[in-house]
Amino acid sequence: MNQDVVILGAGLSGSLLSILLAQQGKQVHMYEKRPDPRGAAASQGRSINLALSHRGIQALEQAGLADSLRQIAIPMHGRMMHSVEGALTFQPYGTAGQYINSVSRGVLNRLLIEQAATRQVSFHFEHTCEDVHLVDNTIFVRDEATQKMQEVIAGLLIGADGAFSVLRNAMQKTPRFDYSQHYIAHGYKELTIPASATGDFAMEPHALHIWPRGGHMLIALPNQDKSFTCTLFLAYEGNESFEKLQTEEDVLAFFNRYFPDALSLIPHLTDDFFTNPTSDLVTIHCYPWSRYHHNVLLGDAAHAIVPFYGQGMNAAFEDCHIFNKLLTKHGTDTDALIAEFQRTRKPDADAIAELALQNFVEMRDKVADDAFLERKKIEAELYRRYPNQWIPLYTMVTFTDIPYAEALETGRKQDRIMEEVMKEFTHLIALTDQDFENIVARLL
Amino acid sequence: MNQDVVILGAGLSGSLLSILLAQQGKQVHMYEKRPDPRGAAASQGRSINLALSHRGIQALEQAGLADSLRQIAIPMHGRMMHSVEGALTFQPYGTAGQYINSVSRGVLNRLLIEQAATRQVSFHFEHTCEDVHLVDNTIFVRDEATQKMQEVIAGLLIGADGAFSVLRNAMQKTPRFDYSQHYIAHGYKELTIPASATGDFAMEPHALHIWPRGGHMLIALPNQDKSFTCTLFLAYEGNESFEKLQTEEDVLAFFNRYFPDALSLIPHLTDDFFTNPTSDLVTIHCYPWSRYHHNVLLGDAAHAIVPFYGQGMNAAFEDCHIFNKLLTKHGTDTDALIAEFQRTRKPDADAIAELALQNFVEMRDKVADDAFLERKKIEAELYRRYPNQWIPLYTMVTFTDIPYAEALETGRKQDRIMEEVMKEFTHLIALTDQDFENIVARLL
Repeated sequence: MNQDVVILGAGLSGSLLSILLAQQGKQVHMYEKRPDPRGAAASQGRSINLALSHRGIQALEQAGLADSLRQIAIPMHGRMMHSVEGALTFQPYGTAGQYINSVSRGVLNRLLIEQAATRQVSFHFEHTCEDVHLVDNTIFVRDEATQKMQEVIAGLLIGADGAFSVLRNAMQKTPRFDYSQHYIAHGYKELTIPASATGDFAMEPHALHIWPRGGHMLIALPNQDKSFTCTLFLAYEGNESFEKLQTEEDVLAFFNRYFPDALSLIPHLTDDFFTNPTSDLVTIHCYPWSRYHHNVLLGDAAHAIVPFYGQGMNAAFEDCHIFNKLLTKHGTDTDALIAEFQRTRKPDADAIAELALQNFVEMRDKVADDAFLERKKIEAELYRRYPNQWIPLYTMVTFTDIPYAEALETGRKQDRIMEEVMKEFTHLIALTDQDFENIVARLL
Repeated sequence: MNQDVVILGAGLSGSLLSILLAQQGKQVHMYEKRPDPRGAAASQGRSINLALSHRGIQALEQAGLADSLRQIAIPMHGRMMHSVEGALTFQPYGTAGQYINSVSRGVLNRLLIEQAATRQVSFHFEHTCEDVHLVDNTIFVRDEATQKMQEVIAGLLIGADGAFSVLRNAMQKTPRFDYSQHYIAHGYKELTIPASATGDFAMEPHALHIWPRGGHMLIALPNQDKSFTCTLFLAYEGNESFEKLQTEEDVLAFFNRYFPDALSLIPHLTDDFFTNPTSDLVTIHCYPWSRYHHNVLLGDAAHAIVPFYGQGMNAAFEDCHIFNKLLTKHGTDTDALIAEFQRTRKPDADAIAELALQNFVEMRDKVADDAFLERKKIEAELYRRYPNQWIPLYTMVTFTDIPYAEALETGRKQDRIMEEVMKEFTHLIALTDQDFENIVARLL
């Protein structure tokens, strides 16, 4: 049998995994329908910015990319909340020195592909996988230049081909394959805040900006060229929705009402609004992640999630990291590797999917609520006093590699305790040393 | 535009709906990939028996089929429980005169098609719908005899084409279509208890027989030829599972251990076991049930469920009944008809899906439990005393047309009350008139 690894998709997770596998001496072949992003024609892809945090960084470090990463990332130390009146409130994400990183999807993807190429990974761009024959892991690939079809048999076939995975689609036709796709009522649209007239950032660059407005919200992440990429999250239908924003006047009135300070910073608002697409937000669950032998799904192909915890890429990179560690553990026993990977990773994938949906409510709504902010302060103080006993949920997810499922469960316990605490103490300053000790004791 | 109705699938729900629509003066065209069941070659389809109850009967009455139905149905007045030792316990389903009906899927389907044909419904058997163009409701149909493809434009396109619906499949490719398919860990296999040597039923015919064994169970429903169709529900994998039953000895030992009284009645057990397929049990949710205009899913195509409440066919027939009533209400405003149908019916479809999954646990496990049986007796007495105030969940689902979602919610309230009641009173005889009055008061 052909012992080479074939990865479908040269996006973020596929490219990173190719590096990790090449480091273990595997010959890796990548098939990607899009053009080579290193070429001149490239870089018009999605401009979306991503928030890279601990789990993703750990995986990149394993691939020897920690230094390269620092050159393309902008640290964000907390959330900068914008009120309707334009008042700013800064909420640190963690303790001093803890931050997440704004990185451009396109720049990071290019970096990963360049690094993979130096490690003898072989790339086939503009090669579209049309179908997969699962029993022997044959892929049927169309060369977009010649339109010729080609069959490739993989020793190990990895589907890193995203939310609409061709490999998963083939698995869906096999018996007893569990699958769900669920869309939220909101879509999103990207807008741009360019650098200021003086060539500087128009807002604080070391923060993730949020305009929380209950039913909808705007966020902005900094770019290296001193612009910000903004994302408007808004319902498709209803009183305040994309369907209600049909004219330039509609859009201006909407921004003027909810985001006046942002409006003044987005010069091409109405052009961007009507040119840029409105995109969907889907959660995908499936199981198993492998059918028959020697194939596996990972990243969005196995578990696409909504973006509200900033964990989509981090979860996918953690998949790569864990897969790579299991390869070291199981060696040539690929069945055992895949079995352990999907069995142990599935609960964590389900947990982060749930956390991401929950965090939408928190981001668009609760972060503007005083009681919620006071609770966050009390939890921050608990964490400062008992850094190993009371780790806030956001910190567990973002700054540790505690399994997502464990973080979700601990977070639920903390929720129940803090609900009681907030009935008794509405403000941080009311708590004594003994109170803090009692709270932590309840969690343990 | 073509004003004719096209129904995909001439199974139970499609055929019934065609009669109801023909009664309203619609010209209806049916496309079905299987051969005409009225022909000589037919009748080798699924032998599965179905439990027809109030909702289904109501729909059949609307189609004028109440009398024909009585000729093919065998009343079942309750559950006959078989212990491992062969002891029998009879549990009535409702009050005296309430029963469900064992009917053969094949016989009922033939009856519906015969009746539809007398009402000028036009049937196209061995015509497979390969694809649907949703924007104008064009179906692409292959004539299995000639292999020629044909395009048909429908004025109203109805997908009654089952759990693997071609119409739903087309909808799945449109934006923001919610979909899930979830398989339970169990599969099922059909076996036969023939008529006895004296040509009579080998067991009590007016009951649904159950051998509840915790992790698995056997059931049997009577047929008109005095045989019983048995269904074994068993996990695919694990300690006691289909994968462990590989040889004739395995099967005989398993039946001897768990179903000794049934074993003696199934002469061709091992032949049946290894010849008949093992089938899957899937729950399918999706939404919306229509895309763009003038098309709609119903029955299993919209909401396939597991069979443990005996409601799959009944829910599908109730869909037809409700759709037909809404057609009368909305007349030619098909958009309004479809909008109200899917909006009001979706919560009920979700509720019966959940109830069906729950009832598997009840059937295979709790029905053999003394405390559960005593609770059932107390609830039966409550129903006898307060027939309009305390209707047991099984009765609401099976013998009324209370919407499934309402039945589910009331059932949950009853559960909470009965949990408390059972802590206080372990036996029916301990309750006074005042106790019964107090219990009912808590529900209202």
